[in-house]
Amino acid sequence: MYTVEVFVTYKESILDPQGQAIMQGVHQMGYEAVKNIRQGKYFQMEIVKEVGDVDQAVADICDRLLANVNMETYRYTIKEV
Amino acid sequence: MYTVEVFVTYKESILDPQGQAIMQGVHQMGYEAVKNIRQGKYFQMEIVKEVGDVDQAVADICDRLLANVNMETYRYTIKEV
Repeated sequence: MYTVEVFVTYKESILDPQGQAIMQGVHQMGYEAVKNIRQGKYFQMEIVKEVGDVDQAVADICDRLLANVNMETYRYTIKEV
Repeated sequence: MYTVEVFVTYKESILDPQGQAIMQGVHQMGYEAVKNIRQGKYFQMEIVKEVGDVDQAVADICDRLLANVNMETYRYTIKEV
């Protein structure tokens, strides 16, 4: 079995208004030293049996379902357990 | 400087309808071996100077701003760069 973690974030060139709103909140809490907050999405999943090339399957799921590849970029980790 | 990554997910006992919707989509793509998809939130931030106890500052930000601790749980990593 594999456990997979996927991290989807906006590309660097894309404005992240949610991250900016959170940064304002953080600064209002008194943490002015916190900069460059960016929000993204996080997915956990399990792959319970062999699906051929696991890496390719996860990339396919990310490309077609989890990330908008025009605006977002993703990375993932695959652990065999 | 520190780079911080925060992962916020629903507690195990809380239903994750988004994750279930994604799982249906993944199964329709032909990946029936994928199970237990859970969606969460992911945050990146930088802490550019000393803020006393970095660990405590990040936990404070998570508790008060990033996570709804009634329904969500979080973990984070802090890297000094």
